[in-house]
Amino acid sequence: MTVLLLSCPDRPGLVAATSTLIHHSGGNIAHADQHADDRHGLFVQRIEFEFPDGRSLDAFRSEFAVLAESLDMEWEMVEPDQRARVALLVSREGHCLLDLLSRIRLGELAADVPVVISNHEDHREITEHYGVPFLHLPVDPVDKSAQQRALLDALKEADVELIVMARYMQILPSEIIDRFPRRIINIHHSFLPAFVGAKPYHQAYDRGVKIIGATAHYATAELDQGPIICQEVTPVSHRDTPDRLIRLGGDLEQTVLARAVRLHLERRILSYANRTVIFD
Amino acid sequence: MTVLLLSCPDRPGLVAATSTLIHHSGGNIAHADQHADDRHGLFVQRIEFEFPDGRSLDAFRSEFAVLAESLDMEWEMVEPDQRARVALLVSREGHCLLDLLSRIRLGELAADVPVVISNHEDHREITEHYGVPFLHLPVDPVDKSAQQRALLDALKEADVELIVMARYMQILPSEIIDRFPRRIINIHHSFLPAFVGAKPYHQAYDRGVKIIGATAHYATAELDQGPIICQEVTPVSHRDTPDRLIRLGGDLEQTVLARAVRLHLERRILSYANRTVIFD
Amino acid sequence: MTVLLLSCPDRPGLVAATSTLIHHSGGNIAHADQHADDRHGLFVQRIEFEFPDGRSLDAFRSEFAVLAESLDMEWEMVEPDQRARVALLVSREGHCLLDLLSRIRLGELAADVPVVISNHEDHREITEHYGVPFLHLPVDPVDKSAQQRALLDALKEADVELIVMARYMQILPSEIIDRFPRRIINIHHSFLPAFVGAKPYHQAYDRGVKIIGATAHYATAELDQGPIICQEVTPVSHRDTPDRLIRLGGDLEQTVLARAVRLHLERRILSYANRTVIFD
Amino acid sequence: MTVLLLSCPDRPGLVAATSTLIHHSGGNIAHADQHADDRHGLFVQRIEFEFPDGRSLDAFRSEFAVLAESLDMEWEMVEPDQRARVALLVSREGHCLLDLLSRIRLGELAADVPVVISNHEDHREITEHYGVPFLHLPVDPVDKSAQQRALLDALKEADVELIVMARYMQILPSEIIDRFPRRIINIHHSFLPAFVGAKPYHQAYDRGVKIIGATAHYATAELDQGPIICQEVTPVSHRDTPDRLIRLGGDLEQTVLARAVRLHLERRILSYANRTVIFD
Repeated sequence: MTVLLLSCPDRPGLVAATSTLIHHSGGNIAHADQHADDRHGLFVQRIEFEFPDGRSLDAFRSEFAVLAESLDMEWEMVEPDQRARVALLVSREGHCLLDLLSRIRLGELAADVPVVISNHEDHREITEHYGVPFLHLPVDPVDKSAQQRALLDALKEADVELIVMARYMQILPSEIIDRFPRRIINIHHSFLPAFVGAKPYHQAYDRGVKIIGATAHYATAELDQGPIICQEVTPVSHRDTPDRLIRLGGDLEQTVLARAVRLHLERRILSYANRTVIFD
Repeated sequence: MTVLLLSCPDRPGLVAATSTLIHHSGGNIAHADQHADDRHGLFVQRIEFEFPDGRSLDAFRSEFAVLAESLDMEWEMVEPDQRARVALLVSREGHCLLDLLSRIRLGELAADVPVVISNHEDHREITEHYGVPFLHLPVDPVDKSAQQRALLDALKEADVELIVMARYMQILPSEIIDRFPRRIINIHHSFLPAFVGAKPYHQAYDRGVKIIGATAHYATAELDQGPIICQEVTPVSHRDTPDRLIRLGGDLEQTVLARAVRLHLERRILSYANRTVIFD
Repeated sequence: MTVLLLSCPDRPGLVAATSTLIHHSGGNIAHADQHADDRHGLFVQRIEFEFPDGRSLDAFRSEFAVLAESLDMEWEMVEPDQRARVALLVSREGHCLLDLLSRIRLGELAADVPVVISNHEDHREITEHYGVPFLHLPVDPVDKSAQQRALLDALKEADVELIVMARYMQILPSEIIDRFPRRIINIHHSFLPAFVGAKPYHQAYDRGVKIIGATAHYATAELDQGPIICQEVTPVSHRDTPDRLIRLGGDLEQTVLARAVRLHLERRILSYANRTVIFD
Repeated sequence: MTVLLLSCPDRPGLVAATSTLIHHSGGNIAHADQHADDRHGLFVQRIEFEFPDGRSLDAFRSEFAVLAESLDMEWEMVEPDQRARVALLVSREGHCLLDLLSRIRLGELAADVPVVISNHEDHREITEHYGVPFLHLPVDPVDKSAQQRALLDALKEADVELIVMARYMQILPSEIIDRFPRRIINIHHSFLPAFVGAKPYHQAYDRGVKIIGATAHYATAELDQGPIICQEVTPVSHRDTPDRLIRLGGDLEQTVLARAVRLHLERRILSYANRTVIFD
C-alpha cells in the first residue's frame, strides 16, 4: 500500500479531486480519512491506495504533483513498508529504551536503529546485546555546548529521519530542533500541559491529583510545548508516594511513546498550528 | 446540514462518485467519513453537506437515487436538526430515565417524548413534572401477552421512530422487535458479552472481575446479542460488594445510554452483520 | 453504622489504640481504613463500627474523647445515615444541577436541598418541579458585593452544612469561603492543574490535548487550587471542536461532581495540606 | 520491611489483636490494610512492619504462631526484598517475555529467572542475550504428555516458586497446576469472562465490541476460570481489524502481566474462593 498524506487550504471538491485522480489512474483506495479544520481553513487527508496492475508510482507521482500544485498542497507519498532509520536518545531511565528495542526486535516497528546515544553509560551492555551501537556522550554541566555539537554530528552521521527521546533528560539545542522539524518525538512524564518541566511526578504528588499521565509530543524550541501526539492516564490515590507514581507512570510512558513512534512511522500524523491530526 | 448515510457493496470509485455528485450539484461537503469492511465487502459512508444557495433537497434526492440504484446502495438522507419522537420504557430503576429527561429538557438531545411507559408506577410523578405523559402497563406474571399487546398499541399510537429501554426489565416480544428494526436501544448493565442475562453485577461479583461495564445495543430477537453501539467501563476492587457495583455501574449506564441515543439521533450509526460503524 | 474519621500525628500503636478501645467497649468494627503520610508525619483513619447491643453512642463518645485528647487527634463521629442539608449553586449550565436533583430524588444521595441559588432565572421551573425552592440572586457586574452579601445571608438562612457549586460561574468571596471550610465543593471543567481559570475547553482545544477531564475539589481562597477530591478523563481527537469538547466534558462533570458529593456525605474524605485522603 | 499476609474467620477484635502484638513486641507498623468479606465470613490482612532495634524475626514468628493458631489463621511472613525464583514460559508471541526480561534487568521486579521454557525456538537468542538459559521443549501434537513431563521436570529442577505464562499457548496438565497452587500466573488476551478460549481477539471482532481487554489470573484446573488478579481495557472501533486488535491488545497484555507479577512478588495478593484481594 502507498500512503498519501496531504494538507491544503480547504475548498469544495477536494475529496472528489483526489479520489477521482487515483481512480482514473487505475488505483484502488483501501482507506481514506480526511479532516477539515474550520478554524484554520485547512483540509488534511491520508489515503492508502495501490495499483493492482503493479504500475509504477513514479508516473502517478508526476500526475499528482500537477493537481497538488494547483490546489496549493503540501504532500508526501510513501511506501509505508519501507523501514525508517531512527536514533534513540536515553539518560538513566531505561524502560522506554528497552521497550522500543524489544518492539523493533519483534518486528512490531518498521525501524532500524543505527545508534543509541546517551549521556550515561548505564545501558551500553543491553543495547549492544540487541546488536545496536551505543554512543556515550557525557555532558559537562559547566558547558554543554561541546556535547550538543557532538550529538548533532552523531545524528548527521547516523543519517536518521527520526529521533526518539526515550527519557533523554537533556534539553536539545535549537540547532538540532531546527534540523529535524517534526522529526523528534519526546515523552514527557506528565499529562501535559499540567506539570511542565522537571520532576513532574513530584509536582503531581504535591498537587494531590487523582490521575497521572504521560504525553508523547514533537519537540519544538519551547520546552514541553510541542504538538501532542498521544496521551495516556492512570488513576492514582493518596497511597501513592512519588516513588510509586514514578513506577506507575513508567508503564504509561513506554506504551505512549511506542504508540507515537508507530503512528509516525506509518505516516498517520499530520501536524499544523501546534496541533496534530491522528489518522488511526 | 444534511446527513447522507449509505452502504453498498464495496468497489473502486465510490468515494469519487458520491463526492463528485454532491460537488457538481453545488453542494459543500463539511464532513465525510467512510469505512470499507474488507471481510464483508461492504462500503459505508456518512456525509454532512449543504447547498449554500438554499437549493431544495428534493431535486438532489432524485439525482442521488439514480446513482444509488446503479450502485446497489441502501441510503437515508435527513436533516439532522429535525426532532425525533422517542418513547422511553422504564421499570423500577429510574436513573437512566431521569438522565434522559434532563438532557432533553436542556436541549442536549433533539427528541420529543410523547410517552414514558413503565410496568411500575414509581416514576409517574417526576415524569409528569417534566411535562411528559406517563403510561402504566403492569405485567401479569402468569400471562404477559396482554401487556405486550397494550405496549405495542401504545407505541404505535405514540407514533415513535425510536424506543429507548432505559432499564426496562422486561423482554420485548418479537412483534415489537420486528416492527422497530434497529430502532430499539437497550442498556445492558454489564460489559457484554460477559454476563448476559439477569443480575449481571452479581455475576461480576461472583467472578471477581476487576472492571465492570455497561453496554448500549440495539435490541434484537436474541437477548443481549444485538449490535453494540457503545460501551464504558470502570475499575472495581475486592472492596466492592454487589450493592456498590450496582451504584458504580449506574453512572456508566446513564452516560452510555445517553451517548447511544445521541449517536442514533444524529445518524452516526450504521449497522450491518450484527456490528455497528460509529461515525463520530 | 457509626463513622469515626480521625487524624493525628503518626506514632506507633495508633491502630491498636483505636481498635482496642472500640472492641473493649463492645463495638464491632465493620470496616477500618487508615493511611500514614510519612512526609507529613500524619496518621488518618476511618472506622465504621456499631454496638450490637444498641448501646448509646454518647457514652462511647466521652471515652473516645479522652483517648483523642491524649493523642492530639482531630476527629468527627457521625451516623452516616443522617441526611445533610446541602445548598446547590448554579449559573446557566444546568446538567450538574439536574443530575444532583435526580440523584437526591432517587434516594442515591442522603441530602436535603433547602435551596437552589442562581445568578440566572433559567432553571427555576425545573428546580421547583423537583419541589425545591429557587432563589435568583442576579449579579451586578459593576459591584458584585451586594449579591455576595445576599448569597451569604441566604446560605446562613438555609442552615446548610455543604455547598455545591454545580457549574456556578462566579468566584465566591472570602467571607463565604472562610465560613464553610472544606464545606464547598466545586466542579472545574478541566483536568486540573491543566487549564486553570476561564474557558478550559477552549484552552484544551488550543493546546491540542488528546484527553480532557473534570475535577471536583474543595473551594479555597485561591481559585482552582483547593484540594482535589476526584477526577475523570475521556479521550478526544482532532475531530472534536470546542463545542464537542464542552458536550463530552459535560458527562464527566456531572459524574465526577456527584461522586464527590457522595464521598463527602459518607465522610469518606479527609483533607489536610491541600491534599485529600479518599476512603473508598 | 517485613510483610505479614493472613486470613482467618472474621470475628471482633482481629485488628486489635494483630496490631497490639506487633506493637508490644516493639514493632512499628508502616502500613496495614485489611478487608472483611461478609459473604464468606473471612478476614484478610496485609501488614508491613519492622523492628527498629533490628530484633530477629524468628522470635516474633514464634509468638505470632501462637496467636495465629488460636484464631485459626493461615499466614505467611516474608522479607519482601528477598528475590524470587521465577520461570517464564512462552510460545511464539514474545512481547510479554521481553517486557518481563527488561523489567527484571532494570531492577523493577525482584526476581531471578533460572530458565525460560518454550515450545518454539524463536526467542532463544534474545533470551540468552539477557543472560538467561533457554530451554526448548517442542510439543508432539499427537501425544503431548512427554513434553508435559519434561516441563514438570524442568520446573522442579529450576526450583522456582512462581511460574509466569507469558503468552504460553499450551494448556498445563493438572500435575503442574496442582504442584504450584496460586503460583502460576497466566495472561489471557481478553477481558475475561468474555471470550474464554482460543482466538479471543477474533471473537471480539466478530461480536463487534467497542472495548477490548487483557486479564492476568492464577491458572487453575479449569481453563481461563482462575482468580483474576488484574485487568486492563482499551477502546476500539469498527476500524480495527482482528490484526489491529491483536496489536492494540499486546500493549495491554504486557502491562497487565507485569503488574500481576509485581503484585505477587510483593505479597499483595490474597486469594480465596476464586477471588483475589489486592492490597495496593
